[in-house]
Amino acid sequence: MKCRVCKGAAVIDVRRHNAAFCKEHFVHHCDEQVRRAVHSHRMLEPGERVLVAVSGGKDSLALWDILVRLGYEADGLYLGLGIGEYSDESGDYTRAFAQQLGRPLHEVDLGADAGYTIPEAAAVTRRSPCGACGLSKRHLFNSVAIERGYDVVATGHNLDDEAAVLLGNVLRWDTGYLGRQHPVLPATPGFVRKVKPLVRLGERETAAYCVLQGIDYQVEECPMAAGNRHLGYKEVLNALEDRSPGSKAAFLFGFLERGHERFAGEAEHERDELGECSVCGAPTPGTVCAFCRLRSQVGAIELPVELKVR
Amino acid sequence: MKCRVCKGAAVIDVRRHNAAFCKEHFVHHCDEQVRRAVHSHRMLEPGERVLVAVSGGKDSLALWDILVRLGYEADGLYLGLGIGEYSDESGDYTRAFAQQLGRPLHEVDLGADAGYTIPEAAAVTRRSPCGACGLSKRHLFNSVAIERGYDVVATGHNLDDEAAVLLGNVLRWDTGYLGRQHPVLPATPGFVRKVKPLVRLGERETAAYCVLQGIDYQVEECPMAAGNRHLGYKEVLNALEDRSPGSKAAFLFGFLERGHERFAGEAEHERDELGECSVCGAPTPGTVCAFCRLRSQVGAIELPVELKVR
Repeated sequence: MKCRVCKGAAVIDVRRHNAAFCKEHFVHHCDEQVRRAVHSHRMLEPGERVLVAVSGGKDSLALWDILVRLGYEADGLYLGLGIGEYSDESGDYTRAFAQQLGRPLHEVDLGADAGYTIPEAAAVTRRSPCGACGLSKRHLFNSVAIERGYDVVATGHNLDDEAAVLLGNVLRWDTGYLGRQHPVLPATPGFVRKVKPLVRLGERETAAYCVLQGIDYQVEECPMAAGNRHLGYKEVLNALEDRSPGSKAAFLFGFLERGHERFAGEAEHERDELGECSVCGAPTPGTVCAFCRLRSQVGAIELPVELKVR
Repeated sequence: MKCRVCKGAAVIDVRRHNAAFCKEHFVHHCDEQVRRAVHSHRMLEPGERVLVAVSGGKDSLALWDILVRLGYEADGLYLGLGIGEYSDESGDYTRAFAQQLGRPLHEVDLGADAGYTIPEAAAVTRRSPCGACGLSKRHLFNSVAIERGYDVVATGHNLDDEAAVLLGNVLRWDTGYLGRQHPVLPATPGFVRKVKPLVRLGERETAAYCVLQGIDYQVEECPMAAGNRHLGYKEVLNALEDRSPGSKAAFLFGFLERGHERFAGEAEHERDELGECSVCGAPTPGTVCAFCRLRSQVGAIELPVELKVR
């Protein structure tokens, strides 16, 4: 196995690209994939302040590293989810890497700052922990970015993540989610721009990137996500990719090129109709946003009497 | 396990409907699913002459049986594909069932009547045998229906088939195929209407239907289709259905309700632009239709010199 670029000994092959790379050129390959994603979807402009949502996993640490190396002013935001040892370790990996990188890391601790942990939220709402986790992240990444003056939030969603989400959306033909699924969500009143610069890299590539760059990361999957649908969709896509390399990328990029626009109209319409949360002011289709509703459910805040009826 | 209708002993459960049925009410369930499909998509009008494409397998024999029992004037068309013993047996099952049913069966033998068998076509074209088979069926079902004065061709595609085709189309975001994927393709100049009355029944149901009704059918899969993508997509969907019963139906019917129309415009446009095959007169986007091109490739017909250039 020889490096596609320099013909030296390769350390990794990327079947989707029918290529193998030595360490140096694999890192270059990852940089190039991020650069292409950023440019082709106009994710970031020079001089913008980027807030990277870092979890301590391979994807977000690789993303932060690459963005800084590509010259972006990118700082980190770590959310302490309160999922026992898993969260403790994830925080440690994140802080150690921030120091290694020499960039500021902001931290929000759900338990201390919002009044609940993910396990507590899951217990109280009797819903999937992933639902409470997702809405907490969406709310806090956005509100911290606004408070601290960042132009854009970058998340580490990779090709495998996005393809799996797309498969779930397509299996249900959830037209609203299909309209909103895009590597760039433009800024709208109350929302900063959200971008996913890793959409052109698979998770095997981000893991290899971290290993080769000496970045220590949380290798465990979140214990609360075990057995969820998203992981099932990933397995399904891995089986298809095994049989026919490139099918994941063809699925995701085919959607972005030929499918997405057919669903985008309704999503824009929905965004135009958002009002402000009566408690925190965040954009919401209702009177109280999902984050404040969750906080009131767990007893962290008391909703004004006139809002409780809803 | 008790029958949902009469509370007697059930012989089969249908997890998707969270129901079980005795023999009598399972047959009624199958009838009702066909009736619902026919009515909701306006597939057939009373008094129309229906040509059922029968292969000797469970789906097409069940379809023929149900349509006749529901009062439709439905005759059969069997295509001899020339796939050795598999085709010989399939023909025998079909003829025996036609006699049992007491309805006319038309037959076309690809080898004798069109000048090639499927294995020969696959060898000459060096393409997938399924491609040559599909185009031969599409051409001949349509042309025989027109010649013999049938209003509509009914095929035995079931829920599993259609969901697997949809998954393939979506994985590639093949917008043309997505626009044409529908349980009813209306008649257009040169084409009779095509309908798929089994879209609401899974293949486990059509198999059980045949067993319970004493219909002998070809149980072997086509030996030339082994390992093809379509079967891979079926496996993937079966895994998802196992985890979450009803997901196949949600996928297909969600598409028909909320997805299909977004892709239909281009497909209609394509159909409007078809001309006539210079050899046989069938509708085609080119000068010579795919069927005549295949026949010329296998040496069954000689194309006029001026057409060979293309």
